[in-house]
Amino acid sequence: MSHTRPILAITMGDPAGIGPEVIVGALVKRTLRGIFQPLIVGDARILGRAAAAAGKRFPVRSVATAADAARHPQSICLLDLRNADPDAISSGQLSATAGRAAADYVMRAVELAQSGAVAGIVTAPINKEALRLAGVPYPGHTEMLSALCGGCEVAMMLVYGNMRVSHVTTHVSLRQACDLVKRERVLSVIKLTDEALRKFPRPSGMARLRRIAVGGLNPHAGESGMFGDEEIREIAPAVADAQAEGIDAVGPLPPDTVFARHCAGNFDAVVAMVHDHGHIAVKTVGFMPDVPGGTRIAGVNVTLGLPIIRTSVDHGTAFEIAGKGLADPTSMVDAITLAAEMAGTA
Amino acid sequence: MSHTRPILAITMGDPAGIGPEVIVGALVKRTLRGIFQPLIVGDARILGRAAAAAGKRFPVRSVATAADAARHPQSICLLDLRNADPDAISSGQLSATAGRAAADYVMRAVELAQSGAVAGIVTAPINKEALRLAGVPYPGHTEMLSALCGGCEVAMMLVYGNMRVSHVTTHVSLRQACDLVKRERVLSVIKLTDEALRKFPRPSGMARLRRIAVGGLNPHAGESGMFGDEEIREIAPAVADAQAEGIDAVGPLPPDTVFARHCAGNFDAVVAMVHDHGHIAVKTVGFMPDVPGGTRIAGVNVTLGLPIIRTSVDHGTAFEIAGKGLADPTSMVDAITLAAEMAGTA
Repeated sequence: MSHTRPILAITMGDPAGIGPEVIVGALVKRTLRGIFQPLIVGDARILGRAAAAAGKRFPVRSVATAADAARHPQSICLLDLRNADPDAISSGQLSATAGRAAADYVMRAVELAQSGAVAGIVTAPINKEALRLAGVPYPGHTEMLSALCGGCEVAMMLVYGNMRVSHVTTHVSLRQACDLVKRERVLSVIKLTDEALRKFPRPSGMARLRRIAVGGLNPHAGESGMFGDEEIREIAPAVADAQAEGIDAVGPLPPDTVFARHCAGNFDAVVAMVHDHGHIAVKTVGFMPDVPGGTRIAGVNVTLGLPIIRTSVDHGTAFEIAGKGLADPTSMVDAITLAAEMAGTA
Repeated sequence: MSHTRPILAITMGDPAGIGPEVIVGALVKRTLRGIFQPLIVGDARILGRAAAAAGKRFPVRSVATAADAARHPQSICLLDLRNADPDAISSGQLSATAGRAAADYVMRAVELAQSGAVAGIVTAPINKEALRLAGVPYPGHTEMLSALCGGCEVAMMLVYGNMRVSHVTTHVSLRQACDLVKRERVLSVIKLTDEALRKFPRPSGMARLRRIAVGGLNPHAGESGMFGDEEIREIAPAVADAQAEGIDAVGPLPPDTVFARHCAGNFDAVVAMVHDHGHIAVKTVGFMPDVPGGTRIAGVNVTLGLPIIRTSVDHGTAFEIAGKGLADPTSMVDAITLAAEMAGTA
C-alpha cells in the first residue's frame, strides 16, 4: 500500500523550540511511517542537532521538490530551507532569526498544499513573540494560514480521542469573546464543524458522524435568561438556522455538562463559545502526568475552513525543556495520524 | 467506633426530585453508615414512596430532636416535618408546595448545625423555579445558606477525586463575571480555599494540603495583556497579597492547563475565576456514561466560608427521571463521606 500513502508537509516550527525533536521522535516510529510519507520543511542542521541530542539515527534525504519526494517513498524527505544556523540559534532562546525561519516553513508548506504537491500540512509549534520580533504580522498559525489562503473564515478544532471541539472565539479577551458570540459566526462554526465531521475517520461501515452539540456561553446556558441572554439572542437562533439547513445540531446546552456528554458518546462534536470552555475540557481529559517537570497535554489542533488539510500539535515551543530530550512526540504522532486519515477521506 | 460517628443532617431536597431516592440509595449502604449517623430532615411519606419505588427496605425512626437521634446510633433517624403530602406532590412535577418544603428542610438543618446538635449538613437538590413559585427569596442553596448564617462571604468548591476547585464567581452572566473578578474577591476566595484545605481529608502523616493554583480569566491568562488585563490588574495582585499572608498560592496560570496540572498532582486546589472553568474541568473528568438516558456527573459541592460544614450533591432535581429508580446515589455517597471526613478534622 506504500504507493497510496499521502505525502504530508511537516513544518519544523521554531528552530529553538521542541518542534525539531518531536518531529524526530515521531518519524522514527515505523508504524507511523506506514500511513504517510513525510516531507519535512525545515533545516537539516537543526534536525541533525535534535537527532544527536536524542541519540537517534535520523537519516533524511534532501529534495528540491515534492515530486522528488514522491520518487523516494522509503525516505524521510526534507525541503532544506537552510535558514536556521545552529551556531546562531540556541535551543530555548527566543530570536527573530528563529521566528523568521519558522514563518518561512509555514509559507512554503502552504504553497505545496495549495498546488496539490502534498495532501496536507502538519505544523510544529511556533512562538508568538519570535514572530513579532521577526516582523511577521500574524499572532499565530491560524491567522497566518487564513491570510495565506485568501482570508477564509476559519475555526479552531481540538481533537483528542473521540473528542472533537470547535471554537467560536479563541485568542481574544473573555469580554471581547462575549461580544463576538453572534448568530452569524455561531452558524458559520456549526457549518464548518459539520463539514469537518465528514472528513474525519470513523469505524468502517458506520454512517458519517454528524450530531453536533452547541454549548452555551453563560453558566447553565443562561438559565432561561437569568444569567445572560446571548443564548436566547444569538446561539439558539444560530442552532435553528443550522437545523433549517439540515444539520443535526442541538443546543445551546450548559457548558459544564456538554463535554461530559460528548465523552459519553451522546454527540460527535461540540461547538464551544470561548477558548477555555473547549480547551479546559480537552486538555483536562487529555492530561498525562508522565513528563519530568510538568504535564504533557495531549491533543491535536485542526484548522477548519481552510481549502487545505492542516493539523497541528497542541502544545507550544516549550523553550524551558527544548533541546533536553524531554519533549514527548505523542501530540505530533496524533497530528500526523489525523492529517493522514483526513487525506484518505478527502 | 460507632460512638464517635458524627451526626450529619441530610436535607431531603425537593420532594418531587431525585433527592429522596438518592438518600435511600446512599443510606442502605452499611459501609457508609459506619462513618456517620444520619439524621434526615424531610418527610416520612415521601421517603417511603422513594423506598417502595426502589424496592428497598428503608426503616426510619422518627425523632423529635437531634439529641434523640444520638440515643439511637443504629437507626436511620428522621426529623419528619410532615410538609410534603405524596398525594399532592407527584414525582417530577414542579410545585410551590414542594419548593416550600425543600426550603424548610434547609432552614431546620442549618439551625441544627448552628446549635451544634449536628456536625454538619448534606443537602439533596432543590429546584430554583420551585423556590421562586414558593416565594422563597433565594435563587439557590448557596445564597440561602449565606443569608441564614448572617450574610458571610462564601465560595463554591467542587470536589471530585483529588480535584478541589473553588470559584470566584458562579451564577451570573459571563459578562458580569468579568466585572466581578476583583482583587479583593480573588484574595477572599484564595483565603477561603486555604482554610478549606486544612479541613480536608489527606493521607495520614502527610502534611496539610496547601498548594493553591489560581487560574486566569482570559485565554492563556491574558498572554501578558494581549488578551485582556484582568490578570495584571486584579488577579496577580491578589495572588501577591495571599503570598504576603503566607499562603502558598501561584498564578494566574492559563485556565486551559491549570486543571490538568492539578489532576497530575502539581497543586492541591485550584481557584477558578468563572463557573464554567471549574465546572467543565471537574464534570468532564468526572463523567460517568453508565446511566440510562444520560450521563451522570460525579462530584461534591462544598460551601466555603460558612460557620458550619455543608456539602451537597453536584446534580439537580432531575425531574425527568425522578421516581423512576434511575437516579445514581454516588454523588450523595461522596457528599456524605466528605462531610463526615471534614467533621472528623474540625
